[in-house]
Amino acid sequence: MKAIELNIEKALYFAEKEFNGNKDAARQAITTLEEGTGAGNDFLGWVKLPSETSQELLDRINATAKRLQENCDYVVCVGIGGSYLGAKAVNTALADNFEYYYAPNPKEPKVLYAGQNIGEEYTAELEKLLTGKRFGIIVISKSGTTTEPAIAFRILKELLEKQAGKTAAKDLIVAITDEKKGALRTLATQEGYETYVIPDNVGGRFSVLTPVGLLPIAVAGHDINKLMAGAVEMEKSTLRPNEDNIAETYARMRNALYQSGKKIEILANFDPKLHYFAEWWKQLYGESEGKDGKGIFPAAVDFTTDLHSMGQWIQEGERTIFETVISVAEPAVERRVPSDEANLDGLNYLAGKRIDEVNKMAELGTQMAHVDGGVPNMRIVIKSLDEHTLGGLIYFFEKACGISGYMLGVNPFNQPGVEAYKKNMFTLLKKPGY
Amino acid sequence: MKAIELNIEKALYFAEKEFNGNKDAARQAITTLEEGTGAGNDFLGWVKLPSETSQELLDRINATAKRLQENCDYVVCVGIGGSYLGAKAVNTALADNFEYYYAPNPKEPKVLYAGQNIGEEYTAELEKLLTGKRFGIIVISKSGTTTEPAIAFRILKELLEKQAGKTAAKDLIVAITDEKKGALRTLATQEGYETYVIPDNVGGRFSVLTPVGLLPIAVAGHDINKLMAGAVEMEKSTLRPNEDNIAETYARMRNALYQSGKKIEILANFDPKLHYFAEWWKQLYGESEGKDGKGIFPAAVDFTTDLHSMGQWIQEGERTIFETVISVAEPAVERRVPSDEANLDGLNYLAGKRIDEVNKMAELGTQMAHVDGGVPNMRIVIKSLDEHTLGGLIYFFEKACGISGYMLGVNPFNQPGVEAYKKNMFTLLKKPGY
Repeated sequence: MKAIELNIEKALYFAEKEFNGNKDAARQAITTLEEGTGAGNDFLGWVKLPSETSQELLDRINATAKRLQENCDYVVCVGIGGSYLGAKAVNTALADNFEYYYAPNPKEPKVLYAGQNIGEEYTAELEKLLTGKRFGIIVISKSGTTTEPAIAFRILKELLEKQAGKTAAKDLIVAITDEKKGALRTLATQEGYETYVIPDNVGGRFSVLTPVGLLPIAVAGHDINKLMAGAVEMEKSTLRPNEDNIAETYARMRNALYQSGKKIEILANFDPKLHYFAEWWKQLYGESEGKDGKGIFPAAVDFTTDLHSMGQWIQEGERTIFETVISVAEPAVERRVPSDEANLDGLNYLAGKRIDEVNKMAELGTQMAHVDGGVPNMRIVIKSLDEHTLGGLIYFFEKACGISGYMLGVNPFNQPGVEAYKKNMFTLLKKPGY
Repeated sequence: MKAIELNIEKALYFAEKEFNGNKDAARQAITTLEEGTGAGNDFLGWVKLPSETSQELLDRINATAKRLQENCDYVVCVGIGGSYLGAKAVNTALADNFEYYYAPNPKEPKVLYAGQNIGEEYTAELEKLLTGKRFGIIVISKSGTTTEPAIAFRILKELLEKQAGKTAAKDLIVAITDEKKGALRTLATQEGYETYVIPDNVGGRFSVLTPVGLLPIAVAGHDINKLMAGAVEMEKSTLRPNEDNIAETYARMRNALYQSGKKIEILANFDPKLHYFAEWWKQLYGESEGKDGKGIFPAAVDFTTDLHSMGQWIQEGERTIFETVISVAEPAVERRVPSDEANLDGLNYLAGKRIDEVNKMAELGTQMAHVDGGVPNMRIVIKSLDEHTLGGLIYFFEKACGISGYMLGVNPFNQPGVEAYKKNMFTLLKKPGY
């Protein structure tokens, strides 16, 4: 099989007319993206990012990661939104489900996240954990003044300098920020932190393949060369409009379904490691398309877990939803259902089967049930949870998102609505200038 | 303040006519619930469960919990859906955000969860973690044959017996199951496990205040007497229809909003510890109301984290949503924003303020922004994250759910749609009889 395959067979007949009717719109959207002639065209740096990223940059990121690994048991990534979700998504997808329970080791320090909320308990409890520990900080912010990461960084920097000394602390902090301007750039220059650049033409939710995502992923012990190679492959295969362009097909199918009255897209996985990948996807699509009073509402479920919570609604609630399933073809380990002499639980009919085979039949059975129940179903099959595949999957969703947003008729690269709560908050907090 | 308060002021004017019009329907629903004359009336055991639970039962649960704590560093709860989400919700709400990173201690063994998915990697990685460790199992299943927990229990039981010996293993396994029938009851009797009963008249999603939830919560070191006392108080205060019955008010408001075209309810928190509480709530409402082609779609967000992902959609997407915010009035610890001489990040205007004060202004600013943007907003304020408050909050949502479901005109206590995927899966797996 290919690393990533898309199957729309069980969605198509719910909106065949709309799908057949939007081919030209999709091709126009691809052209607009490639030529950079559409709305938001100063944020198209992600389009050719994989192929244009230099090996030198990747090598430097790996060197920085190695240095942090050697000197830290814990590395805290400070960032929010696009400066948080991409790294968290990839690191969770590639980690042991129970990674937290193991002690840190020299090859893989524990990667923690902060600055993605304003929790007083969260902050205090993180300080408590890090007290007396060898830790480092990757601080990620274009401006350095976003409230959530700025508060977290102030507190963590203070703790680190207290514990390691001001001089040593400088070598344990890496800043990822604007190339020239902003508070964090100024501070980094002043203190002498190692820095990486967030490109001007790449928005937060499209930034996982820049140092924003790559450094935290490398620190967690994963191979960013492979991640990027997977993305390069997908960049090439989704370059031009054609029948095999899965980004085009996905964008067309979801727009066709939306046109036919399907208002909610549920991204479903059958592997809990993909939970945060779905969170990343929610930002990518929700922030790109939810504007001008329109946009598909992105939701996510972890199956079979949530078949026992949201399953009933999906099967029999309002018929305004569709599902996109990410299926992992091959688990990385092998465990079979054991036999049991007494067989009181009646499971011996499964004895000797791989657990994943049962999972796959649950997946197929769910697809049949939901489609029968009136829920269109797209299926994305990925070969396995590895860096190469994830790099491709990331780029696939990014490219499809750009196409899809243009087809919808919005600017997929701005997020004017995110400012509204901040302005109110600043006024309430009497921030100078508000 | 009261332990739990509900404010509908910022939702009411979006659907005032509908709200004023559904008072009688709500009162009828309450009467139907109290008198047990409606659909699904053989599953109303939860209505008076708090006040009717004996102190003897709570004492026995605490004794069992103590025994497991003394003999285990890890206790695995095996269950899915209602046999998983309630305990996970309460245990997460009451734990340190970074609890995983600490070694087990004799008062609070690590509580893990299994049987809530069919992950081959999940299962293998759990086995790896538990190999060589002192662990116990709480297995929760009405029948003992539900596929997910049955597979997990087979494997974990085998591991435990291998490590601890068959005799010792018996004392490290507790079964929560049907009083008389079913595979797990038979096995428990045969092996001599300690057992607890899942009452016949309490459905899975309403079972957190039975041993199903109480034992895992007690094992994690929390006070189930206080949890139950909070539920008893809420049971009393929501007994009769009246202006102060917040369960009635919440049920009326959400039904009024649904009638007025709001199709998605987003449960929002500003404290990441409430993440799994929202998952529990999604099952409670989704499974109770998502049937007959109707029902509000339940979604959840963690703020301010998700203001930087779903915030754009909420602010400017389709105007078919409303928000219900759970706000925690008082954090358990105190941490203030530190001052910084250079003030490059411009945060000194916050110096000396509690972090939670910033969070509360984010909350208020978000409410203003979203209401301005056309999103009705209900607000549930809870005093703090403690057992007493959570017990009340659980019962509040359960009671409101019963009322709300009857107002919607569905049977809130069945879940016929959950069987569909299972039947297909059994056929595909060639289960005997399918």
